[in-house]
Amino acid sequence: MASTIRCIASMLLLLLLFSCATAGDSAPKFALIIHGGAGSGTRAEIGDEREKDMRAALNRALASGYQVLEQGGSSLDAVQAAILVLEDDPNLNAGKGAVFNAAGGHELDASIMDGKTLQAGAVAGVTTIRNPILLARAVMEQSPHVMMAGEGAMRFASQLGLEEVDPTYFDTERRRKALEHALQKQSELGTSAASDYFGTVGVVALDQRGNLAAGTSTGGMTAKRYGRVGDSPVIGAGTYANNASCGVSSTGHGEFFIRHVVAFNICAKMQYQKLSIEEAADAVVMKELVEVGGSGGVIAMDAKGNIAWPFNTKSMLRAYQSSESGPVVKIFKDE
Amino acid sequence: MASTIRCIASMLLLLLLFSCATAGDSAPKFALIIHGGAGSGTRAEIGDEREKDMRAALNRALASGYQVLEQGGSSLDAVQAAILVLEDDPNLNAGKGAVFNAAGGHELDASIMDGKTLQAGAVAGVTTIRNPILLARAVMEQSPHVMMAGEGAMRFASQLGLEEVDPTYFDTERRRKALEHALQKQSELGTSAASDYFGTVGVVALDQRGNLAAGTSTGGMTAKRYGRVGDSPVIGAGTYANNASCGVSSTGHGEFFIRHVVAFNICAKMQYQKLSIEEAADAVVMKELVEVGGSGGVIAMDAKGNIAWPFNTKSMLRAYQSSESGPVVKIFKDE
Repeated sequence: MASTIRCIASMLLLLLLFSCATAGDSAPKFALIIHGGAGSGTRAEIGDEREKDMRAALNRALASGYQVLEQGGSSLDAVQAAILVLEDDPNLNAGKGAVFNAAGGHELDASIMDGKTLQAGAVAGVTTIRNPILLARAVMEQSPHVMMAGEGAMRFASQLGLEEVDPTYFDTERRRKALEHALQKQSELGTSAASDYFGTVGVVALDQRGNLAAGTSTGGMTAKRYGRVGDSPVIGAGTYANNASCGVSSTGHGEFFIRHVVAFNICAKMQYQKLSIEEAADAVVMKELVEVGGSGGVIAMDAKGNIAWPFNTKSMLRAYQSSESGPVVKIFKDE
Repeated sequence: MASTIRCIASMLLLLLLFSCATAGDSAPKFALIIHGGAGSGTRAEIGDEREKDMRAALNRALASGYQVLEQGGSSLDAVQAAILVLEDDPNLNAGKGAVFNAAGGHELDASIMDGKTLQAGAVAGVTTIRNPILLARAVMEQSPHVMMAGEGAMRFASQLGLEEVDPTYFDTERRRKALEHALQKQSELGTSAASDYFGTVGVVALDQRGNLAAGTSTGGMTAKRYGRVGDSPVIGAGTYANNASCGVSSTGHGEFFIRHVVAFNICAKMQYQKLSIEEAADAVVMKELVEVGGSGGVIAMDAKGNIAWPFNTKSMLRAYQSSESGPVVKIFKDE
């Protein structure tokens, strides 16, 4: 009896909160939010030239994804279009320009999720697929599975005729130096994670039909152990999208993001605790992760186009454009 | 101003709900709960002899894990001890007796998580490690990573001296017949998932210091595509443990369990919606998953030793023992 009253009381309160929460600003018809990683350091550490290149890459990705949305395309297609630009850009840690693992190779991870259907696709540890985001989408749409890894994932890509490249295609001089630096530091100090160890790119989009989608792609952490899988291909940690709550893509020290199920956790806090997207994202990134030393950030958007992009690192490459505002490209905290 | 009042009101209600929810039965000092998969079919489909073997395996695993807890050992050690028994038993789909993938091999997945520290370890797609749960634990305790896959994971196991076996060690006649049956059915009907396609084993334990741990190990789904990763090694989907909420191990059609982040979702519903372990597990397994056709079940335990083991399939191998009651071994719905 007491529990019935408690139940009714809580349902009434939830209804009240829900009805209040829907009051807000003029909602955008469609919107796109992008990150290019949260591990790039301060203005001085990045340098003018690289900063310019990074902003240019974010602008190109934004334009590419935005165009899809503007023409009435799906949020999934917008996420894919923007990530393709970022994967092909050598300045970002995904696709071309991916960091090296400890063995001197590249293992790429990616995932994508459809907020309308909760369909999802993810690939881990692929070494020869030019655009891992295309393979993640193929796993979602053309296989009965959600997640595929290594050789099996690449064999599936071959069957589909996805573009394959020699593993050296992903090499860049900057990332080779970062590996040498990391290995030297590891041998001096034991294992550690410096600010340049992680990058990752990700996109969340809301289309004109009100559907959310999210995607993430990465080369992982510099000098990671061969076979290590980070949070990017883990649905719930690196990527999540659900029209009923929100879409999220993560970037940061992946082990913490897996253990705290960061992307889904933000959506769960929205849905179950009736927090705003900003409150939910801040609670996880600026409080829960900070308390355990989990460096990184997220981009997050709810089904009304409200956004949040908290990060607890020195900088996070990020960009936003909607039918109502933008384009905006930011890197540092003081922007 | 309105949002401040809303916030205070919701905090007061949550406090009220929390204070009510703590009233309960006499709590066990320690407890262990086990599943051996939710895809074994009806009494007639399983048959008397196999039923006897399955019950014997569950009893042995229960005794092994319970002994650890009784002697004051950690929940992590109890989870590991029970899963080792299940992995070595040919009647269950983990370790020896794992199902075959479509290529006629075995790819094993496992994960383990410590509810006190949120440390976690997981391995996917290993083919030569006799006990994948030991490798998952080694990833947690002896690497800086949470998840490792394929070759890299096995190379790490070799470095640690974990027992390696020829891939044929995992072969059993029953599973070979299941593969032949599945491939024939696939060629007749296109892709489908029959009730015997998934097994998986899992354990959740609460030790005398009040710490939860959870672990899961599996051969995956019969005739799965080479490279497919299911929910078992996905922290949040197949396994989750947090002293602040609960410990969960999942079994079922893994793709649905990944997309619905089943293990963490149950813990989030407990923590954020103040549901009991039973209400939270039922909401996810008997409602959310049923609505989308996601077959399977979970075992779940909160930090007071309250348990839930809902399943939406014909049967789920399950066992329970605590300092206050048991041992209990069940398979069918009517038990």
